[in-house]
Amino acid sequence: MEEEKKIAVIGGGSWATALVKILCNNLDTVGWWMRNQEAVDYIKQFGRNPNYLSSVNFDVDKLDISSDFNKFGVDYDVLIIATPSAFLYKLFENVDVPQLAQKTIFSAVKGIIPEYHSIPARFFHKQFGTPYEQIGIISGPCHAEEVALEKLSYLTVACQTETYASELAEKLNCRYIKTNISDDLFGTEFSAVLKNVYSIAAGICHGLRYGDNFQAVLISNAIQEIERFVDAVSPVHRDVKSSAYLGDLLVTAYSQFSRNRTFGTMIGRGYTVKSAMMEMNMVAEGYYAVKSVMEINKRFQVDLPIVEAVHNIIYEKISPVVEMRILADKLT
Amino acid sequence: MEEEKKIAVIGGGSWATALVKILCNNLDTVGWWMRNQEAVDYIKQFGRNPNYLSSVNFDVDKLDISSDFNKFGVDYDVLIIATPSAFLYKLFENVDVPQLAQKTIFSAVKGIIPEYHSIPARFFHKQFGTPYEQIGIISGPCHAEEVALEKLSYLTVACQTETYASELAEKLNCRYIKTNISDDLFGTEFSAVLKNVYSIAAGICHGLRYGDNFQAVLISNAIQEIERFVDAVSPVHRDVKSSAYLGDLLVTAYSQFSRNRTFGTMIGRGYTVKSAMMEMNMVAEGYYAVKSVMEINKRFQVDLPIVEAVHNIIYEKISPVVEMRILADKLT
Repeated sequence: MEEEKKIAVIGGGSWATALVKILCNNLDTVGWWMRNQEAVDYIKQFGRNPNYLSSVNFDVDKLDISSDFNKFGVDYDVLIIATPSAFLYKLFENVDVPQLAQKTIFSAVKGIIPEYHSIPARFFHKQFGTPYEQIGIISGPCHAEEVALEKLSYLTVACQTETYASELAEKLNCRYIKTNISDDLFGTEFSAVLKNVYSIAAGICHGLRYGDNFQAVLISNAIQEIERFVDAVSPVHRDVKSSAYLGDLLVTAYSQFSRNRTFGTMIGRGYTVKSAMMEMNMVAEGYYAVKSVMEINKRFQVDLPIVEAVHNIIYEKISPVVEMRILADKLT
Repeated sequence: MEEEKKIAVIGGGSWATALVKILCNNLDTVGWWMRNQEAVDYIKQFGRNPNYLSSVNFDVDKLDISSDFNKFGVDYDVLIIATPSAFLYKLFENVDVPQLAQKTIFSAVKGIIPEYHSIPARFFHKQFGTPYEQIGIISGPCHAEEVALEKLSYLTVACQTETYASELAEKLNCRYIKTNISDDLFGTEFSAVLKNVYSIAAGICHGLRYGDNFQAVLISNAIQEIERFVDAVSPVHRDVKSSAYLGDLLVTAYSQFSRNRTFGTMIGRGYTVKSAMMEMNMVAEGYYAVKSVMEINKRFQVDLPIVEAVHNIIYEKISPVVEMRILADKLT
């Protein structure tokens, strides 16, 4: 029998913490990198991440935890990257581990890389020299908070190399996680990026006191925008009504846990972008995504009225009231 | 210029009340039938429906309100039927107004006729002799409660005769209502029926403490079931991601106003079907719909795991815990 592949999760946030928790069900050892050495020490001592999902109790003997990224880049076979997209560039710009070109890299980033106007898959390909056939994505619908509570959730593992997708899917499967596999790397990743923009839109409309009737129309139009965009960027056969696309959009746009929706709601209620960010003390991924999607779309020229409306509100300082009235006329 | 068509709304519930309110924006006279003579008298005197959406204030001079159905069947050109599906058969079984065969009938019923295992369009066709070309449907996503609050909402008017659809759509268009038209009578109506079943399913899962992650997967699978079913029953080109299908599903499955979801939640929490109905003091349309859809599907044999699960729970008394666990394995 082949030796089991060594899997490491890169990141110390809530989604990384949830992924480590899931993997501990099926693996004897899970690699876990986080930048914060204090958190590393805390987890080693107490079996809990002091900063995220701290209700989750880890079997410390299973964790190979360290703040030294290179160790994982060298020793491990599969790296699951689950850091916020906004910090990705900074984190990896000076990494020089030639072995990374041979690894399988799964992105669980759910965002776009602002300095790069590109999805994480492309960044890893360029930065690490990893071929696209060895790059995959882990996609929702999946809030980390519900994984902590062991609520039944479904993940989609997408990779152009089916065996890589199914091998990782098998490791993620457990009592409260079911997995699908897919070969649609680009579509799944772009859809995961776009949903954050629509979640901001949903929040803005909520903040402006639009009701459930309107939200349902907004989200129906949003999934159609996603389909138009991903079909233009990566024209392969896919059904955007699947969990990895529509489900991921729904859980983000309708859920109280969504940072992007909360950010949008504050904008709708009249906060400035800056004060909303300060108040939340975190960055909503959709804030960067909307700018990058507009940039990428210069080439594809897809009709994206909702993305444009969010962009106008956030970057062009158009009044949300006015912009949403204009948008409402374009929705069907 | 042609004389304006006379439009009457048939029904005294919240959706009928909302439709009358909408039509009063564009018409000088709106016909309004309801069975309850006391309510008729009350509305004439106070301009408010005492039983539903009683915050809505009507201009009484615009209302031609009566409990005599035949009057509308004879005098009016367009009848919008907005009575609960469960009472439709009883209401109209003894109606004998030959003029009805010449009218345009729009169903705003959102349900299936239990005695008939059929959608309202088919019932009107059989009962009144109205040709299908003169039958249409008004579909959401649209909770009556939000119409009362004048929250921006979108309606889809579907009729095989496009001019009938667009004429009525024009009359419904107003400051807080935008309309789409469609020629997909059967698909729109079946989708409106099915969404109530999925809303019960969403409620059951909520009652069983499944989380948002699971709900997103359930709804993604539900819209795929809708597509499979309506494509089998009426194979025309349609995009079920449109507001009239997906939007209508979302507003019902995610909204607190939904009776079907509330009914499901009670079942999930352990109420029996009978006690849930007694407690709610009303009938959830999905209760009848699920039985009829199962009946209709005997002919089409479409794979409908969610419908089957709801049917097993409600009619076969299978434990919701067990049934939903079995269903979860079938979802993707």
